[in-house]
Amino acid sequence: MDTLSKMPGLGRKSASRLAYYLLKVDQSFARGLAADILDLKEKVKSCPLCGNYTEEVPCAICTDPERDRKTICVVEEPKDVHSIEATRQFFGLYHVLMGAISPIDGIGPDDLRIAQLCQRVREGGIVEVIIATNPTMEGDTTALFLSQRLQGNQLKISRLALGLPVGGDLEYADRYTLAKALAGRQQIEE
Amino acid sequence: MDTLSKMPGLGRKSASRLAYYLLKVDQSFARGLAADILDLKEKVKSCPLCGNYTEEVPCAICTDPERDRKTICVVEEPKDVHSIEATRQFFGLYHVLMGAISPIDGIGPDDLRIAQLCQRVREGGIVEVIIATNPTMEGDTTALFLSQRLQGNQLKISRLALGLPVGGDLEYADRYTLAKALAGRQQIEE
Repeated sequence: MDTLSKMPGLGRKSASRLAYYLLKVDQSFARGLAADILDLKEKVKSCPLCGNYTEEVPCAICTDPERDRKTICVVEEPKDVHSIEATRQFFGLYHVLMGAISPIDGIGPDDLRIAQLCQRVREGGIVEVIIATNPTMEGDTTALFLSQRLQGNQLKISRLALGLPVGGDLEYADRYTLAKALAGRQQIEE
Repeated sequence: MDTLSKMPGLGRKSASRLAYYLLKVDQSFARGLAADILDLKEKVKSCPLCGNYTEEVPCAICTDPERDRKTICVVEEPKDVHSIEATRQFFGLYHVLMGAISPIDGIGPDDLRIAQLCQRVREGGIVEVIIATNPTMEGDTTALFLSQRLQGNQLKISRLALGLPVGGDLEYADRYTLAKALAGRQQIEE
């Protein structure tokens, strides 16, 4: 229970429920779970190019000849790659920073995969870098730092749009988001 | 209880709670409430120009000499005017449609204040119409209808941006919103 309750989203109660479940269940299930956990740590590596989790090195996206190699989408975490892939609207490459700049947590630019990104840009062939860090204080700080660091490479540098969620309602949007939706309004093509 | 429970957000249980409260409370409070309700219906009118609720005709926004009279922000409901005013980022005039096109509810263009909007545009002096209908199917249909109807008036017609909410997280954005945030990405100025 002590070990389980250290994991995110598991409190004392759910940890105890899981522990009792493991006591009751087949020996083979418990062995399978233990083996899967060891496997996970052994087989899953970081892609040396984009930094995403992968079983093959380099990862399937970095080696896919169909992807647009001129565009890099920069995200904070591997799970963000998954979110953007789910849109089926992005066909370029990724760069995972493995976090965001956060002085309060002692995370500076050198703790992130920023040098590797600069290296990829210096190697040439990149036309656009889309900074898809979260629209939080840490994500904004990171985006600003990156845009300054990447300047002067004849790059287009962009960020994800802020605005209303699809299917949403003006009434439920906070006023900062509504202000951004207003400022970023898009002209309707005639 | 029957009457109270017809109001939005009041079920049988809260209607009964309110009714019992009214039975128990001072006579003067009940009289005051009844008078306020009558007052509300009597004093609050629709502004003949923008359609927003107002005690004075025309409303305070339409008559404010400080507001930019070249820009009209079109919204579905009076409460949306309140939301946009709260951003303190819009200084133009409003036009309240009093709903959105919704064939399933039997609401067509003629049930909304669209003719009045066209009239305001025809009278001239308007440079931009910002269509701030909700990003729902009804709001999108209404925006499309309006943009076609207003065409050819040498107007800039725009819609509120779709994208990530301020302070949000890519992980929690649905994939349609994330796709819009990607499509509407904003170039960072060097």
